[in-house]
Amino acid sequence: MSFTHVAIIGLGLIGGSVGLAIQQHLPGVRTSGFDRDPDVRRRAADLGLVGQMHDSAAAAVAGADLVILCVPVGAMGTAARDMAPGLGADAVISDVGGSKVAVTQALQAALPGRCIIPAHPVAGTENSGPEAGFATLFRQRWCIITPPADAPADRVAALVKLWEDLGAMVECMDAAHHDMVLAVTSHIPHLIAYTIVGTASDLEQVTRSEVIKFSAGGFRDFTRIAASDPTMWRDVFLNNSDAVLEMLDRFLADLAVMRGAISEGDGQAMFDLFSRTRSVRRSIVAFGQDDARPDFGRGDHGKDQN
Amino acid sequence: MSFTHVAIIGLGLIGGSVGLAIQQHLPGVRTSGFDRDPDVRRRAADLGLVGQMHDSAAAAVAGADLVILCVPVGAMGTAARDMAPGLGADAVISDVGGSKVAVTQALQAALPGRCIIPAHPVAGTENSGPEAGFATLFRQRWCIITPPADAPADRVAALVKLWEDLGAMVECMDAAHHDMVLAVTSHIPHLIAYTIVGTASDLEQVTRSEVIKFSAGGFRDFTRIAASDPTMWRDVFLNNSDAVLEMLDRFLADLAVMRGAISEGDGQAMFDLFSRTRSVRRSIVAFGQDDARPDFGRGDHGKDQN
Ligand SMILES: NC(=O)c1ccc[n+]([C@@H]2O[C@H](COP(=O)([O-])OP(=O)(O)OC[C@H]3O[C@@H](n4cnc5c(N)ncnc54)[C@H](OP(=O)(O)O)[C@@H]3O)[C@@H](O)[C@H]2O)c1
Ligand SMILES: NC(=O)c1ccc[n+]([C@@H]2O[C@H](COP(=O)([O-])OP(=O)(O)OC[C@H]3O[C@@H](n4cnc5c(N)ncnc54)[C@H](OP(=O)(O)O)[C@@H]3O)[C@@H](O)[C@H]2O)c1
Repeated sequence: MSFTHVAIIGLGLIGGSVGLAIQQHLPGVRTSGFDRDPDVRRRAADLGLVGQMHDSAAAAVAGADLVILCVPVGAMGTAARDMAPGLGADAVISDVGGSKVAVTQALQAALPGRCIIPAHPVAGTENSGPEAGFATLFRQRWCIITPPADAPADRVAALVKLWEDLGAMVECMDAAHHDMVLAVTSHIPHLIAYTIVGTASDLEQVTRSEVIKFSAGGFRDFTRIAASDPTMWRDVFLNNSDAVLEMLDRFLADLAVMRGAISEGDGQAMFDLFSRTRSVRRSIVAFGQDDARPDFGRGDHGKDQN
Repeated sequence: MSFTHVAIIGLGLIGGSVGLAIQQHLPGVRTSGFDRDPDVRRRAADLGLVGQMHDSAAAAVAGADLVILCVPVGAMGTAARDMAPGLGADAVISDVGGSKVAVTQALQAALPGRCIIPAHPVAGTENSGPEAGFATLFRQRWCIITPPADAPADRVAALVKLWEDLGAMVECMDAAHHDMVLAVTSHIPHLIAYTIVGTASDLEQVTRSEVIKFSAGGFRDFTRIAASDPTMWRDVFLNNSDAVLEMLDRFLADLAVMRGAISEGDGQAMFDLFSRTRSVRRSIVAFGQDDARPDFGRGDHGKDQN
């Protein structure tokens, strides 16, 4: 099977990009959409993010064989309940949320007995809102699909195919493993970046203007991450707290070791860590998930992503 | 006064870039150089990093009115002692080291009674070695000069002028303040990046190949920093340990607060921090120290810096 009508609920960065990408890559597939914010609906309609805009979630999902919820993780349950009256019996419900155990539970509670196949495209920018979306966001990026054990294989295959058609590389894993992988590769880096940028803003010894002036020494790379959407990230930490705390405690233990090395002047321990981490960078570049070019290859994914 | 002959000791990324930048921007100024590694000397000569290459530090500094030590922070004392026999009585001795209290002490101990004016161009890449240098590295970047209280004003002014001629913006401050500013804007970000990349490489629950695959969610921005030169960074932490430990403890305290917010589900505390940090990013972009373009404006500084 393949999907013929995709409804998108939530038309910000990710929802808008999904809508544009489907229209570009799968012109035969109908798209409809809804956002709870009337102003976003108007702007999204003007931008043509979906083929048909609706004034209610139930109307937007009527006739759709796939619904993709593109709302913040904490709003998934509400959004699912809102659309339930319009949902066809055979529709597949998916999403794009950045944490998967909590979202799966919320969707299953809101839509008992439905075919729910959660997903998470590992692609984004620190911008949000309908104007931030672009059709090439998912190109050469990973999309993780976390099918529950009882998900029908043909529906899973159709969802894999859809994301591949949008340019993504797909990997399937269970939701709990997803949450652990993302805690390391995304959630902890964001938490750390937010925290250090906060620390630097509050110092008495060093002024904020000095921090800004001399940020080229490494700090500015953290500020880019720490400019990500606050609502989305609050929801991620509220909804993936177990995996995040587990990984955070690993990081804190390792940082305590490095603190000890610095206070004892143990240059060898520092040198060993600093040498080891270089090879990870090389693997990421070799694997095409970053790039040695000055724009880190971001140009490949289309529009300015900073 | 202005300098007419600049000797550069250590011809890696920074020394090579200084040599190329002087030749490009100040064609009337003589440049001579030395590196302790014969192979680096050969490669640097082939690349034309300085006008005249020498086989000893003493020969390289003979006749120079300015010597810039571009060796790792931990090698400053040795490099200064090696060149002492060739040093003219009125020569100004400067450097480019990333920590300033320790380097100033090392230089003053090695060259008592000499005119020592330390400096630190806040510009770099994670590459090292003579091939990594390029003439535009310092353009639109800050250079911090830390003149001791008794440094003659005309020599300080000449050094300021030299760095401005190479395209840098110059700020003077005392060495201890420099070390605190750099601990926040550079050293702690590097320590954190090295540590989290190390943590992620050592997990049992998540494979290294998963970390690499899904790094686009934030992690890859840390790996770029964590690919910086191990020797240089070991030396930075050995030589700026007081300021680094002070700032690290501030960061750890703030991170403990965020850990508490996550484990208690305090979404408001998260939202407040995550909103506050956005404005720092905007200031950095507004201040021209980073950029909203896809290459972060790295193209402005010439060659590929990744
Ligand atoms: N941004 C990234 O980097 C990224 C990457 C991968 C996955 N994701 C996931 O993508 C999802 C959306 O993120 P985004 O960056 O696209 O956020 P966004 O740009 O803020 O868009 C979300 C949109 O959903 C709307 N919305 C909220 N609750 C709703 C509801 N109950 N019904 C209908 N619409 C609702 C929001 O309206 P209001 O403004 O009125 O709330 C907003 O317009 C999140 O689950 C996130 O985890 C994000
Ligand atoms: N890289 C950055 O981002 C950056 C930014 C601002 C400032 N800095 C500062 O710049 C300085 C140099 O860093 P870099 O990145 O240019 O390092 P680099 O590329 O490794 O170059 C340093 C060169 O100095 C040589 N050297 C070491 N000890 C010496 C001695 N006693 N006499 C003569 N030459 C000697 C090294 O040779 P061997 O290889 O044989 O040791 C190497 O060729 C450091 O103090 C650093 O703090 C670096």
